[in-house]
Amino acid sequence: MPPSDRFVAETSFYVRYAETDAMGIVHHSVYIVYFEEARSHYSRALGASYADFERSGYWLTVAEVQARYAVPARYGQQLIARSWIEDLKSRAIVFGYEIVDQTSGVVHVTGRSHHICITHEGHVARIPDSWANAMRRGLPQQ
Amino acid sequence: MPPSDRFVAETSFYVRYAETDAMGIVHHSVYIVYFEEARSHYSRALGASYADFERSGYWLTVAEVQARYAVPARYGQQLIARSWIEDLKSRAIVFGYEIVDQTSGVVHVTGRSHHICITHEGHVARIPDSWANAMRRGLPQQ
Amino acid sequence: MPPSDRFVAETSFYVRYAETDAMGIVHHSVYIVYFEEARSHYSRALGASYADFERSGYWLTVAEVQARYAVPARYGQQLIARSWIEDLKSRAIVFGYEIVDQTSGVVHVTGRSHHICITHEGHVARIPDSWANAMRRGLPQQ
Amino acid sequence: MPPSDRFVAETSFYVRYAETDAMGIVHHSVYIVYFEEARSHYSRALGASYADFERSGYWLTVAEVQARYAVPARYGQQLIARSWIEDLKSRAIVFGYEIVDQTSGVVHVTGRSHHICITHEGHVARIPDSWANAMRRGLPQQ
Repeated sequence: MPPSDRFVAETSFYVRYAETDAMGIVHHSVYIVYFEEARSHYSRALGASYADFERSGYWLTVAEVQARYAVPARYGQQLIARSWIEDLKSRAIVFGYEIVDQTSGVVHVTGRSHHICITHEGHVARIPDSWANAMRRGLPQQ
Repeated sequence: MPPSDRFVAETSFYVRYAETDAMGIVHHSVYIVYFEEARSHYSRALGASYADFERSGYWLTVAEVQARYAVPARYGQQLIARSWIEDLKSRAIVFGYEIVDQTSGVVHVTGRSHHICITHEGHVARIPDSWANAMRRGLPQQ
Repeated sequence: MPPSDRFVAETSFYVRYAETDAMGIVHHSVYIVYFEEARSHYSRALGASYADFERSGYWLTVAEVQARYAVPARYGQQLIARSWIEDLKSRAIVFGYEIVDQTSGVVHVTGRSHHICITHEGHVARIPDSWANAMRRGLPQQ
Repeated sequence: MPPSDRFVAETSFYVRYAETDAMGIVHHSVYIVYFEEARSHYSRALGASYADFERSGYWLTVAEVQARYAVPARYGQQLIARSWIEDLKSRAIVFGYEIVDQTSGVVHVTGRSHHICITHEGHVARIPDSWANAMRRGLPQQ
């Protein structure tokens, strides 16, 4: 369940046929891509483009991903991908995710990903202020 | 260029990070998936769900695909995928495609795909009337 | 680290260009596909085809996936995907994974996936004996 | 059919589950990735790594791709991807492809792709001699 004390970004899309597998359902690796797109949308929604973040010399590498599959989704369904920040440190971010059916609200998959900020040279780095401040706008304000 | 004498469906989406490659651009195979999603949207826009078409015992197999790459697209861009019917026969359909940037209108990729209607048992079949009629609504009316 | 008391399957392949992303590395979602192929190879190596398992009316659904990313892999590298069974129950299996560089042995990614056996009608079921026995051959013998 | 007067590279692999779709067959976009891997293997087989080519400051962009789908392939099949050079110009290459079943030899898909050599700055460029010479070794010798 997304937390109620912070910003939860939502983006909506149709399941593509190419995303299904021979079981007739969305392949489990595809939700990792949905998570990523949810994350992209999170920063977009707070006015901070991840593309700009990259162009400024940084990358948010993926250190860990976890997904729990509750109910399979199928071709043509309209899904909502929700994402929120679970934890924000000076050099790291944890995002949480929920993929639900737009019509019924059924929860298909939940997940979490851990990220570390690095420079394009590969050094661990502080998340630049401009971007960290944007992310912080999504967190509970003290 | 999409023809001006028939229905051209449009669907819009952001380029996902997973769709890029080490050249920093959308991988060329991904446009084939965009074409497919454009095709899905075409039938949706005419009130005929491809998911229902499948459930009624048919498949629209892909016999041929062609894509021309004009300008590379990048992560975060908002694209429009356009599709239209180039030819509709009793057992076959040809779709045309154009992938353009939503803001600038720059044409990134164009393409075409040939499809043949088969039953789930693998026999070539007439496209069922309900679906063919829906598709025909997108064609120039005599 | 793969356990030393049981069978560890190995399959080897080159990183494909399409599997890279704009960071110039293998996209993190792709390792989930490598895990799956490692799993496929595990049963192949024990003489039990997953394709046959499916044809006999069952599916091994994915209930959970976890991946830890240590070192990014790049286009053209030859990787080894290792997989082993961490736990085998009457209706469930847990697989462990390790993706390493074939030349240097560097560990790129480790992971784990939880699976539940269901019928094609969607009911949780005992893993059929023939397949369970084959899987058991990879476990420590009492 | 691959031409008999020149080098035809072959690489072999199993169809991955993630590559299938809800029709139970390999998704048509995946063959474009197989083509690419066949192309990678072509240069590897002639002792010229595409990764090195890229590192030397060039890219071989894709200008056009075409695929014809004859017979669908399925999960677990062992496929052979064949590739050869159809045409080699100072700034462009055309590759041909054939994807066949390793056991039966059945031809699943054939195709062709057109490539243009550019610098990392995006300018059309002569294919560097070292790489062009390697590619030429695969062509009929006058």
